[in-house]
Amino acid sequence: MADPDLQEAASALDADDRLTGAFVAQVIAALDDGDNEAARALAEPLHPADIADLFEQVPAHDRAGLAAALGDKLDAEVFAEMNEWVKSELLDLLDAGQVAEIAQALDTDDAVAILEDMDAGDAQDVLRAMTPEDRAAIEEALSYPEESAGRLMQRDLVAVPEDWTVAQVTAFLHERPDLQTDFWEIFVVDEGMLPVGTMRLSWLLTTPPDIAVADLMQRDQTLIPVDMDQEEVALRFQKYALISAAVVDLKGRLVGVITVDDIVHIIQEEAGEDILKLSGAGDGDINEPVFDTYKTRSRWLIVNLGTAMVSSSVIAAFAPTIEKFVVLAALTPIVASVGGNAGTQTMAVAVRALATNQLTEANTRRTIWRELRVAAANGLTVATLMGIGTALVFQNPMLGGVIAAAMLFNILVAGMAGVIVPVLLDRFNFDPAVSSSVFVTMTTDTMGFLGFLWLATRAGLTG
Amino acid sequence: MADPDLQEAASALDADDRLTGAFVAQVIAALDDGDNEAARALAEPLHPADIADLFEQVPAHDRAGLAAALGDKLDAEVFAEMNEWVKSELLDLLDAGQVAEIAQALDTDDAVAILEDMDAGDAQDVLRAMTPEDRAAIEEALSYPEESAGRLMQRDLVAVPEDWTVAQVTAFLHERPDLQTDFWEIFVVDEGMLPVGTMRLSWLLTTPPDIAVADLMQRDQTLIPVDMDQEEVALRFQKYALISAAVVDLKGRLVGVITVDDIVHIIQEEAGEDILKLSGAGDGDINEPVFDTYKTRSRWLIVNLGTAMVSSSVIAAFAPTIEKFVVLAALTPIVASVGGNAGTQTMAVAVRALATNQLTEANTRRTIWRELRVAAANGLTVATLMGIGTALVFQNPMLGGVIAAAMLFNILVAGMAGVIVPVLLDRFNFDPAVSSSVFVTMTTDTMGFLGFLWLATRAGLTG
Repeated sequence: MADPDLQEAASALDADDRLTGAFVAQVIAALDDGDNEAARALAEPLHPADIADLFEQVPAHDRAGLAAALGDKLDAEVFAEMNEWVKSELLDLLDAGQVAEIAQALDTDDAVAILEDMDAGDAQDVLRAMTPEDRAAIEEALSYPEESAGRLMQRDLVAVPEDWTVAQVTAFLHERPDLQTDFWEIFVVDEGMLPVGTMRLSWLLTTPPDIAVADLMQRDQTLIPVDMDQEEVALRFQKYALISAAVVDLKGRLVGVITVDDIVHIIQEEAGEDILKLSGAGDGDINEPVFDTYKTRSRWLIVNLGTAMVSSSVIAAFAPTIEKFVVLAALTPIVASVGGNAGTQTMAVAVRALATNQLTEANTRRTIWRELRVAAANGLTVATLMGIGTALVFQNPMLGGVIAAAMLFNILVAGMAGVIVPVLLDRFNFDPAVSSSVFVTMTTDTMGFLGFLWLATRAGLTG
Repeated sequence: MADPDLQEAASALDADDRLTGAFVAQVIAALDDGDNEAARALAEPLHPADIADLFEQVPAHDRAGLAAALGDKLDAEVFAEMNEWVKSELLDLLDAGQVAEIAQALDTDDAVAILEDMDAGDAQDVLRAMTPEDRAAIEEALSYPEESAGRLMQRDLVAVPEDWTVAQVTAFLHERPDLQTDFWEIFVVDEGMLPVGTMRLSWLLTTPPDIAVADLMQRDQTLIPVDMDQEEVALRFQKYALISAAVVDLKGRLVGVITVDDIVHIIQEEAGEDILKLSGAGDGDINEPVFDTYKTRSRWLIVNLGTAMVSSSVIAAFAPTIEKFVVLAALTPIVASVGGNAGTQTMAVAVRALATNQLTEANTRRTIWRELRVAAANGLTVATLMGIGTALVFQNPMLGGVIAAAMLFNILVAGMAGVIVPVLLDRFNFDPAVSSSVFVTMTTDTMGFLGFLWLATRAGLTG
């Protein structure tokens, strides 16, 4: 960091570029003493992304104070980087005019991110306080579905006709002081604003001025339909290693541009989301209000309570067998637990492979067969270990054989369910990350209990 | 897609931009008929990223045939996009000279990705077949630790002195036909190659020619140390919304540049990895050889078998209580299961928050307190439901009270363990995603069994 300000702030950050506990504690102490100047002096040299982090790191009751201390340092850039819960909490403290001012200083997509989280009435007040142009841009963006390309795109872009030369493009760029945002690519369009090609800025800079745009531009380009879901957009950016991409409306006309820095957050969120969805943790944001978290998680726990009762009813049905041989009560959960783990492994792999377009129609059957072979190998290993161990510990070879057979069976079931459940959910347009684990766990629990207790009963095991 | 070739291939792709099963089946049929021309005609119009996908989608035994059919269409760009297992399988079919030719056509980071996965001996043969310059670049990259910035960076970059004008920079760029890669940013350095600032290309293009670089450049920039771990690099790119960043050696000299398109894959992988690690699925790649998958997963299942035995020994210890009242054998797993789910929810949230630098020293205590409150609310809800249900079904209010108390207790334990285990692992530099779930599940199982059966025994429950 070459800037002296940033060096001064360096002690605020640890080696991993996170705010240190000691620094945050200093800020909190200053706020609690009512010493706004000290708090501001500490926070001022920070990068906007770090100021945003600071708001997340201080306790909720200190956030209004920190906002007051920072004054104009709490600007649009800080809001653009802030966690959505913390952001909406802070926005509640500001009036419509102040929010409008912040929103106008932001790129359209960041302004939309602020407005879409507000109550409809508050958002209207803010829009009314904006200039007509900014308001029109944001209202248009808000007219597209949530999480679509239309909400992510920036309308500010550079488009030139095909018959220009490099010199003309360069001259044109010098006459555009109104371009507010950085851009990475210049789009070539026909008279009807239909995109015909694209040029990266580095090509323009290394090409002689008399070359025609038509000869320099690349004709194929990835076009993003304005209504495409942001997860799809992110996959295109990854697949084709894009830095920016043209967004087109339903008639194929160029209406905006999406740049990779907006996509990076989405890739991270979407990939990280799966882990949270699989565990039923919803958004899984540590800044979410406790009551919202409670609602999401308790719903999931109640569903799981239901499935746990279904599988435990299998145990209840075998009560006479267990009464005769109580050791079975201790061994049954082991069969279910290892099966559950095997199922979760396969399910996690299948959910990721579906999300990254690696598991498709073309290789589903092959993947199921692959997972069955893995399950067979795992099942034989674990069943052998458990069977021999049980036979020795309880001096009961029949019990060892029964538990080994039940484990092998359950791990095979787990391997199948672990792929088939997410694939079927995906095929019927349910999100496999959300609902797979309920079905898979219920299957492995039930089959673990049933397989083991049924075999034990048939084998006539008694203590 | 403006290109007619791409339009022809469009039928190969479904609405989500994935290869269709029908298309892949056509290719497989052509290969199985030995009709290489037909296979090539089908695959030729595809984008390199889709050709790479095609290799992943056809069965392993068809891949050599597809490579033969494609001939020179199987080029460096296709290899750069290919899954690592499929890639190393294909590379085994080529001789050192052919691999060297492909590697030389790639950016350093992609060439390194090919060589780092090869056996040391084979990699040496490939290096020997390369030109001295390319070889030096790759050998230097390989000298940095795996998954470090040094392996990701591109050495080709544009650096200019601070006392130049915009006109001089522009003239300089026109004289550099040797620049092979696209670039997005121009670095400003002093005589010792120490970075002093950076300019985005769009600034250069919109600024009058007589302005000095010193007046245009941005002085603060994020510098990436050459030995920084790629996950850290990815976090910096996200936090500061970077398109490219300068890489500096231990003396602070500019040695390379990393661009966001290489980071996008890492962000996706690192975020997706957590889900796979939490479930003990290792790399979780559906193209990994079955035996490697078996080794990773069975190790995890054996660990889980061990922990399941520990917790089930708690049940065994209460055998006399269960013998007196066999209903307990069916209810015990419910207490453990719901606790396990609650623990997994909290753990997933904590693991993500740690990975994204949201859960830090500064807010650990607050986060634990937050999770305890969520756990209390969830615990009261689930315990009430289960307690009343059990009391009614078994006409046994005492049993209802015992199970409600045990569930509340276990969900509180789960909430604590779900945060504390990952935080402690992280603090002692273990990856929380890898080992958290073993500890958390063992805790919730053991505490579920123990809490319920101990209370049942104390309450003197009998059937």
